Amino acid sequence: MKAVGIIVEYNPFHNGHLYHLQETKKQTGADCIIAAMSGNFLQRGEPALVSKWARTKMALSAGVDIVIELPYAFAVQSAERFASGAVALLHSLYCEEICFGSENGNIQTFIDAAKTLLERKEQHDSYVQKALKQGVSYPRASAEAWKQLDAVSLDLSKPNNVLGLAYVTAILQKQLPITPRTIHRIASGYHDEMFSHPSIASATSLRKALQGSVAQLETIAPYIPAATKQALKQYYDTYGMFHEWEAYFPLLKYRIMTAEEEELRQIAGVDEGIEHRLKQEIAAAPTFSAFMDAIKTKRYTWTRLQRMCTHILTNFTKEQQKKAETPTYIRLLGMSSNGRRYLQHVKKRLPLPLVTKISKLKHDPIYQQEEKAAFAYAAAFPEPVRTNALKEEYATPPVQQ
Amino acid sequence: MKAVGIIVEYNPFHNGHLYHLQETKKQTGADCIIAAMSGNFLQRGEPALVSKWARTKMALSAGVDIVIELPYAFAVQSAERFASGAVALLHSLYCEEICFGSENGNIQTFIDAAKTLLERKEQHDSYVQKALKQGVSYPRASAEAWKQLDAVSLDLSKPNNVLGLAYVTAILQKQLPITPRTIHRIASGYHDEMFSHPSIASATSLRKALQGSVAQLETIAPYIPAATKQALKQYYDTYGMFHEWEAYFPLLKYRIMTAEEEELRQIAGVDEGIEHRLKQEIAAAPTFSAFMDAIKTKRYTWTRLQRMCTHILTNFTKEQQKKAETPTYIRLLGMSSNGRRYLQHVKKRLPLPLVTKISKLKHDPIYQQEEKAAFAYAAAFPEPVRTNALKEEYATPPVQQ
Repeated sequence: MKAVGIIVEYNPFHNGHLYHLQETKKQTGADCIIAAMSGNFLQRGEPALVSKWARTKMALSAGVDIVIELPYAFAVQSAERFASGAVALLHSLYCEEICFGSENGNIQTFIDAAKTLLERKEQHDSYVQKALKQGVSYPRASAEAWKQLDAVSLDLSKPNNVLGLAYVTAILQKQLPITPRTIHRIASGYHDEMFSHPSIASATSLRKALQGSVAQLETIAPYIPAATKQALKQYYDTYGMFHEWEAYFPLLKYRIMTAEEEELRQIAGVDEGIEHRLKQEIAAAPTFSAFMDAIKTKRYTWTRLQRMCTHILTNFTKEQQKKAETPTYIRLLGMSSNGRRYLQHVKKRLPLPLVTKISKLKHDPIYQQEEKAAFAYAAAFPEPVRTNALKEEYATPPVQQ
Repeated sequence: MKAVGIIVEYNPFHNGHLYHLQETKKQTGADCIIAAMSGNFLQRGEPALVSKWARTKMALSAGVDIVIELPYAFAVQSAERFASGAVALLHSLYCEEICFGSENGNIQTFIDAAKTLLERKEQHDSYVQKALKQGVSYPRASAEAWKQLDAVSLDLSKPNNVLGLAYVTAILQKQLPITPRTIHRIASGYHDEMFSHPSIASATSLRKALQGSVAQLETIAPYIPAATKQALKQYYDTYGMFHEWEAYFPLLKYRIMTAEEEELRQIAGVDEGIEHRLKQEIAAAPTFSAFMDAIKTKRYTWTRLQRMCTHILTNFTKEQQKKAETPTYIRLLGMSSNGRRYLQHVKKRLPLPLVTKISKLKHDPIYQQEEKAAFAYAAAFPEPVRTNALKEEYATPPVQQ
């Protein structure tokens, strides 16, 4: 059986994802599609609109065969670390190919770029370090350095190109027996926050249209599969909310206000004295977006700050980040009957424990952070939903379809 | 001018407090009554029903001349530390006498008891240590040890006798030029949670009758001065709530669930491995009282656990507790014109800075904890009340009457 890996957030699953999935199957001839999916919090430092279970359902309904959790310690990270964790997990399940969507759409461009990056890493990094010292933000410094390498034409102002390059670089760097492949994103030129294609819209625009409530579900219906619509509705009916930063802001504010600067400095992503700024601006901020506006400068991108806020919210320390070098377990979130067959097929030779009962992970530092993230995620619910949602982190068996 | 000190919480100010105040004036012939009052959180580890400013108004209306804040680092503590902080502050303002209410009502009994305690402290403490090791709670161990000293007949099962003894002990131990005095609490035999006297009821019973809402204000009207009623109503109209533990439970739960055990161990009052128990029981607890029931054992009194929860909520560490040996400033919360005259009279020879602008306290460790407590206290408000309430901690000038 040939397994192909994809790396996803599905926040929420939409027609663009469906297109990517179907093209992946068609182009690779995969017998089994395995998705490494972020859990409660996402790469850009945001809570997922709905739980990982609800998003797993969407994925299985659309034809994914196996969904595994990309642990928090890799999921809420810059492209490089995100990619390295995801690629390692998919490799541990013997994926022969990894297929990602990109604005570029030509895999050779990515391979060339990754090779250049690996060969001339020192040169690239020294450019970046210099620019950072001058107060330039990381993405800008990296794009500038990239231009100076003057070797390949990959547009790194496009987010999916950045991620794609990170996947290919991770594969080449670790010399993994994985063939990378990319699919050109359709309708990828549209503005992220508006609808301009009849059936494809970005997850950002869909979340924006929902405005945190189920009332606008019909508005986004043309852009999502029926199963996503149903899963969203069911989630809202059960839990009474879609998750977004503002719901967590009271906790973040409470935490920043009662923490010592020294404590904030222990948190991953709190660097260069930004803890002073956090303490200085938090008291007067009535909302998360007001707070972000207040702490933002040219030096720090929105994403970097948002990720840092997520780490404060979930109490993810530098110490824990250091301990999380590479995935230590494969957590199964869901599978189809086809996925079950594949797992039967490989389970005896898996290099990492395949975990469905997470009580076994009690002493794993990577899972310990996952648990804290699950707690933070549930903290926005009122009772009795909160206590029930917390139980689900432990008691939910893999979704089967 | 003769100043007399009292040590209060006024949560809320009621007719029993008024009686104590009037008797204090009558019996001491004081020209000026100075109250050392707990701020946002109280000795038994609870948030104050209404803010320190609202409670200061009640005190001034009733005839107190000066209200100063007993800092969190002394206010939310066992009787011994509570008393030592309060007595030191009142001494710094040259109070010649301290007058407290007690169930016993005879000052000589307290003086004899304090002397015995000081003389035979080692014997007392060794009894206590032995009993603690056998798993007995501190108050019980202390009462037992006290009995074994067999010297004086002070009933230490009565809370105000315990506090009174701590005041007198602090005065004698530090050899302060302060005369202690006690007033017999009227109607002190009543059950704490019921009304059995026509105009006197305990603060506990009044809070219970209010049930966290303004709807029952008329029910408690016979037991409180008109000014208290007005201040309570005004507070509720402005802030939309009376404060009680359940309003803070979401924050406490979030904090305990996302903190490492190692972090919880840094908090004052988290001893003997109770952090395991906290982590174990918090997930399933839907309310504060359910949580308290879950963590309670014979060894830990309700008050001790509640105080520990308050320290977790306000992030009061053992380190900070160690730094807070004795008060370092006098924070003025309010004064009458008479109080202002007294302060004019003594201000040149005060041994501690008299602070009205708290920005001057930015680097004082005792005030730093006060600030965190103010933040935690405000965290229960919705916006925009929360942000405004936070400003008040810095911007409110002493209440004048």
